[in-house]
Amino acid sequence: MKFLVTGFEPFGQSNVNPSEQVVRALARRQFEGFAVETAVLPVHRFHGPQTLLTHVQQTRPDAVVCLGEAGGRTAVSIERVAINLLDFRIADNNGLVVQDELISADGPAAYFTTLPVRALQQAVAAAGIPAELSLSAGAFLCNQVTYELLHFLAQPQLAIPAGFVHLPLLPEQAANQTPLRPSMALDVMVTAVITILHTLCTQLRTPR
Amino acid sequence: MKFLVTGFEPFGQSNVNPSEQVVRALARRQFEGFAVETAVLPVHRFHGPQTLLTHVQQTRPDAVVCLGEAGGRTAVSIERVAINLLDFRIADNNGLVVQDELISADGPAAYFTTLPVRALQQAVAAAGIPAELSLSAGAFLCNQVTYELLHFLAQPQLAIPAGFVHLPLLPEQAANQTPLRPSMALDVMVTAVITILHTLCTQLRTPR
Amino acid sequence: MKFLVTGFEPFGQSNVNPSEQVVRALARRQFEGFAVETAVLPVHRFHGPQTLLTHVQQTRPDAVVCLGEAGGRTAVSIERVAINLLDFRIADNNGLVVQDELISADGPAAYFTTLPVRALQQAVAAAGIPAELSLSAGAFLCNQVTYELLHFLAQPQLAIPAGFVHLPLLPEQAANQTPLRPSMALDVMVTAVITILHTLCTQLRTPR
Amino acid sequence: MKFLVTGFEPFGQSNVNPSEQVVRALARRQFEGFAVETAVLPVHRFHGPQTLLTHVQQTRPDAVVCLGEAGGRTAVSIERVAINLLDFRIADNNGLVVQDELISADGPAAYFTTLPVRALQQAVAAAGIPAELSLSAGAFLCNQVTYELLHFLAQPQLAIPAGFVHLPLLPEQAANQTPLRPSMALDVMVTAVITILHTLCTQLRTPR
Repeated sequence: MKFLVTGFEPFGQSNVNPSEQVVRALARRQFEGFAVETAVLPVHRFHGPQTLLTHVQQTRPDAVVCLGEAGGRTAVSIERVAINLLDFRIADNNGLVVQDELISADGPAAYFTTLPVRALQQAVAAAGIPAELSLSAGAFLCNQVTYELLHFLAQPQLAIPAGFVHLPLLPEQAANQTPLRPSMALDVMVTAVITILHTLCTQLRTPR
Repeated sequence: MKFLVTGFEPFGQSNVNPSEQVVRALARRQFEGFAVETAVLPVHRFHGPQTLLTHVQQTRPDAVVCLGEAGGRTAVSIERVAINLLDFRIADNNGLVVQDELISADGPAAYFTTLPVRALQQAVAAAGIPAELSLSAGAFLCNQVTYELLHFLAQPQLAIPAGFVHLPLLPEQAANQTPLRPSMALDVMVTAVITILHTLCTQLRTPR
Repeated sequence: MKFLVTGFEPFGQSNVNPSEQVVRALARRQFEGFAVETAVLPVHRFHGPQTLLTHVQQTRPDAVVCLGEAGGRTAVSIERVAINLLDFRIADNNGLVVQDELISADGPAAYFTTLPVRALQQAVAAAGIPAELSLSAGAFLCNQVTYELLHFLAQPQLAIPAGFVHLPLLPEQAANQTPLRPSMALDVMVTAVITILHTLCTQLRTPR
Repeated sequence: MKFLVTGFEPFGQSNVNPSEQVVRALARRQFEGFAVETAVLPVHRFHGPQTLLTHVQQTRPDAVVCLGEAGGRTAVSIERVAINLLDFRIADNNGLVVQDELISADGPAAYFTTLPVRALQQAVAAAGIPAELSLSAGAFLCNQVTYELLHFLAQPQLAIPAGFVHLPLLPEQAANQTPLRPSMALDVMVTAVITILHTLCTQLRTPR
């Protein structure tokens, strides 16, 4: 079984992104029972989703898990839904701010993610790591790439499970910000994502 | 140079306490330039401070750093002050709830902690770990042992530096609680406390 | 112009609901330029949306603004989207807890609300009342009635604007809860909703 | 019975201060059973406490209740203690930022406020208004004037009850800030402070 796991490059005021760090840590490791392909996506309205879809087409994975940073969250947040909306509070790395625009002019209002989100949340929490199901991935790049990925995969022959997981700030990011916000150590986040991949592996092999 | 570092046993709904875990991790290690004596205090209105003072008298340290758990905090919180007040929101481990009582009938309203708190906060933050100066250690055991320690040390011949550091929940504690609260990995907290001890070592050796 | 404004009856631990109070306050008033019909919906998986749709059919309004309580929010929250998901954290007033079920087996994943949400948020904030655009109405009754309303109205001949606004707790609710949560005075919420109706009135009369 | 109630002028980014608004509202009213003298203090390290002490000497009140703004708090916060510390996060209105200085070089570390804080908190909550006891008034002007007031009154012949109450932001302040923070309507805060004065009146007339 092969997973594509993606992160994002740093954006905003930060020169590091936990999702990129997790992806780089996964890329250095071998796993039993599954292989992991990784990619780091640009925080760019156009190149972000393009890069993701290119990697999906090139790697032909059995499932896709996209990761991103969500400053302010305390837990590993497994997203349930991506909506057809761009509403940026800050500029992307191309300097672009978009307000109240559709991602896809003729796409549906939303797609549910197609990972077994409840099982993933329970598995991460059972591993002793704070985890939650989230009803909103925001309206920035994280939501956008998820929506575009699910839109792309919404064809019968491409129907592989795909979803998005938001990660808290790294301690070193939170240590340099005012006001103080929650953080999570890189090791803990890597363990959470590996737990997600193992759970996915089991779930996807089990006929439902 | 010799430090006494104390933690607390678990209390409330939890069967683990990050301060105990940090103290046990320190006890297994050797440090260059200083020695660390440790103790785990009972969460008990009477035995808590008694155990602390007994260890201070037995170990005769050059400085005392007490640690405790503060569910809800996002950062390593270096306390500036302890007040002469007992006002428990939950029972201690002896089942005792105290409301609006003095710790010491004839003691002052408060003592400032006597560690170089600003330098400690800056050193922990510089190590990439969220850290803050705190103006309140609460009105439970953490505040009480700090007050009683500073009251005891408020004699010229005993004037060693002493203070208190509150730690966030461990991930495994936060993973099993509703609502979600911030957490910090044990390794990160151990690094923070070692950074505090190294900084103390440097500061105490430098004539001020 | 005629508006239908709905609230909900109390639920959970509370014997009051700010949305019901606002609706009752509106029902006692006359407005210049528009009429307001009101209804209070049961917090009941089946009767909640049924009652709403019955009122829509009976009153034939020019727009529908549903109100509900969102404990923990600090601002008047104008919802952008309702999703096809029931995932109750607490029971409805019929004792029913639903997890991970669709609202409509063959409905789309979500509907965007069809009120001019940006203009409404700006108008409330300009009136000196904290207001925000929200990307999630949750997965309880508030989201459900919004989804079912938008599903019902998604027919060309019924295409009237409709949406949902979440309100903070009333002060008397927050005063009796631990931990403390934000609240907003009833008068302030009534003013916010009247501001929304006046803004809607202007917006709907202006050809776009 | 005569009370002195003080507020502060606006500071920081704001051109309004809830404590000033409450004090101005009280000054326009008559009360049965007690008289209220009011003053608005400058947010100025030197003139703030001076103005307060001048008013205390001129009005010779039976009790003093100082009010101030605490952005971020959700409840009427009745302070228990003021500490001998100046540590400003923002400049006072004179452009002065003070870090880690004592208020009084030879004063004690802290004074407990001398109002019946528990009874006041219970009375406000019973009136349906969120209220809490607070263990820290910060280290800015609010804490400073309280400390200096209690220091001044710490002479047997001047021993009148005195304390401090922090108020949340007004809705119009919170509506113009990012991120959103809790607020409380002016009417609610005025009712809270009148409840405090009535409770004080009863408590101070009752021999304890």
